[in-house]
Order: sequence, then C-alpha cells, then structure tokens
Amino acid sequence: MFEGREVDGYATPGFKCRMTTQPHPHLEHDFMGLAFRQAEAAAARDEVPIGAVLVDSTTGQVLAADHNRVEELHDPTAHAEMLVIRAVSTGRKEKRLPLCDLYVTLEPCPMCATAISFARLRRLIFAARDPKGGGVEHGPKIFQQPTCHHRPELFGGLDETRSATLLKTFFQSKR
Amino acid sequence: MFEGREVDGYATPGFKCRMTTQPHPHLEHDFMGLAFRQAEAAAARDEVPIGAVLVDSTTGQVLAADHNRVEELHDPTAHAEMLVIRAVSTGRKEKRLPLCDLYVTLEPCPMCATAISFARLRRLIFAARDPKGGGVEHGPKIFQQPTCHHRPELFGGLDETRSATLLKTFFQSKR
Repeated sequence: MFEGREVDGYATPGFKCRMTTQPHPHLEHDFMGLAFRQAEAAAARDEVPIGAVLVDSTTGQVLAADHNRVEELHDPTAHAEMLVIRAVSTGRKEKRLPLCDLYVTLEPCPMCATAISFARLRRLIFAARDPKGGGVEHGPKIFQQPTCHHRPELFGGLDETRSATLLKTFFQSKR
Repeated sequence: MFEGREVDGYATPGFKCRMTTQPHPHLEHDFMGLAFRQAEAAAARDEVPIGAVLVDSTTGQVLAADHNRVEELHDPTAHAEMLVIRAVSTGRKEKRLPLCDLYVTLEPCPMCATAISFARLRRLIFAARDPKGGGVEHGPKIFQQPTCHHRPELFGGLDETRSATLLKTFFQSKR
C-alpha cells in the first residue's frame, strides 16, 4: 500500500476538484504524475507502461499506486487498475469504494472499466485515449451500456501526449 | 488447484468434444456438473452461486475449480472465472492458456469475458444466459467487438434451467 502524498500540483483547465485545501486552483496533488512514475517503472521492468493510482477523495490520500504486472505475475488480468482496486478493496475489506477516484495513464480496457463499475468508484481520470483497446470511449463503451449499473464521473485526455509518447517509445523498442 | 477428475458424462446434443477417450459420445467428463457443485458451495457461503472450472483440453484434466468469492475476499473482481484463470495462469507461469476450456454456470460479465479473451482460452461453455449482467450474448457482447483480439469457441445454454433455478432460489432467499 502506497502511503506517500504527492504535492506537485499542476493545471488542467476545466478540471474540477473537491479537495479541501488547494495550493493549485485545479488539483492539489499530482496524482496523474504519480501514475506516470508507475508507468515509467513498468517500462523499466519490460511491462506495458501503464500506471494507476487510487485516491481517497475525501482526504486526498493515495491508497494504492501500481503498474501493469502481466509479465511479472504471468497473469493476464494484472492490469494496473485491477491491482489498485483489489489492493484497496481487500485491504479495507470493502467490496465497494464509492469515495475513491482512479487515475490511470491510459483509457481502461473493458475488463478494467467493468471492474471500476463493480467497485463503484466515484471518478475515473485517464490520460491517453485508446482507440484500439479502450473500453470507455471506444469499443464496447462499458459505461454507456444499459446493463452498466454504475458509471463514474469521467475525465479523459489528461496529459494525453505524455502517455502516448511513453507507450509509443515502449512499443518501438520492442520491434 | 483441483486435482480430481469428473467421470459422470452427460449428453449435450450438438456439443463437439475432442477428448481422446469418450465413454460418452459428447462429453467425457461432467465439467459443468463440477462447476455446479462449486456454485452450490458458493450459495452455502452466501456468495452469488456461480461456479467455474478450467480444463486442459488436451488431457481433460481439471486445472482449477472455484466459485464467486466477492464477499469472502471483499474483492469486486473475485468472480469465479477470474479466480480460475488467475490460479492457472500464475500457477503455470503462462499468461495465455490457448489449450484451456472454461465451464461456467452463468454467462460471463464483460470483465470476465475480456479476461477470457486476454487469456486466449480455446473454448467457453456457459449454462444460463444473463440478459441483465452478461457480456457475451448481451450488453457489450465483448467477443463481437472489432477491438476484441481473441474470440473463444462459444457454447451457451448448457444446463440453463439448473443454473437459473439456483440463482433464482438464492436471490429469493435474500429478500
């Protein structure tokens, strides 16, 4: 469980945040920056560079930060989002986390989007959009399905270029 | 890891099986029966009664059998299908299981259907169809998405009534 707090705020025009004390008008903590450092750590381990951070929206505390571990764990479901949701839900013994926000460096796939819905997360903030594998704005658009019982607040495209560059560099190095 | 072998074969018209020795013309082992016993065990533990069995299609060996454990683990992703896929992939240290078949007592949700695709399972056999929460024949129809990279062979509706009755009885008892 990640215990630290991020303090490097940055601007995201139009991004609303309910944090109590805001050194920056838009975002108190650089949660997405922390997710990016997780993504970079993933790349260094030869994992697809995607990072995720789960935050308690009432306190601003980072509850979990992780990255893809599909290769390390030999687990096709070990996406960053799944790992942080499972870490916090099992750690807190709460199968639903309605006060938590998820920051992730790439649009979640349909598996992770459905897990986000099951966990009742309050808000999903992702960086790059993913036309090939995403399940939020692309493909099955999980949260738009009539059978989807919980749709988090959505913010996509935050720091999109940084994420796209990270992924592009990683996959180019694999060729 | 479940090590036993099921020997009570039963007929499923039109169901093709590549098992080497077949005491029954359609299905050597009653894998769905084993999945049902898992589902019944789930109900006894106050878990939503859904069971899953992962089988090595080349040997007929049951590699994992489990049921929903969302309540026990406080994990919204602890569906039966996810648990058996993770158990086998991490146990074998193989992120893809292209020779494995999954038997599950209910149509998988979009999360599990996507995980099945990621794991490259050969075949998915499910019992009851699930118009409310399913992601195979209903909702996002994961395997029909152009962005879905692997579609297993599909067999739905096997022992559908038994599964529907089990679920109905469970939810009626909850009212």
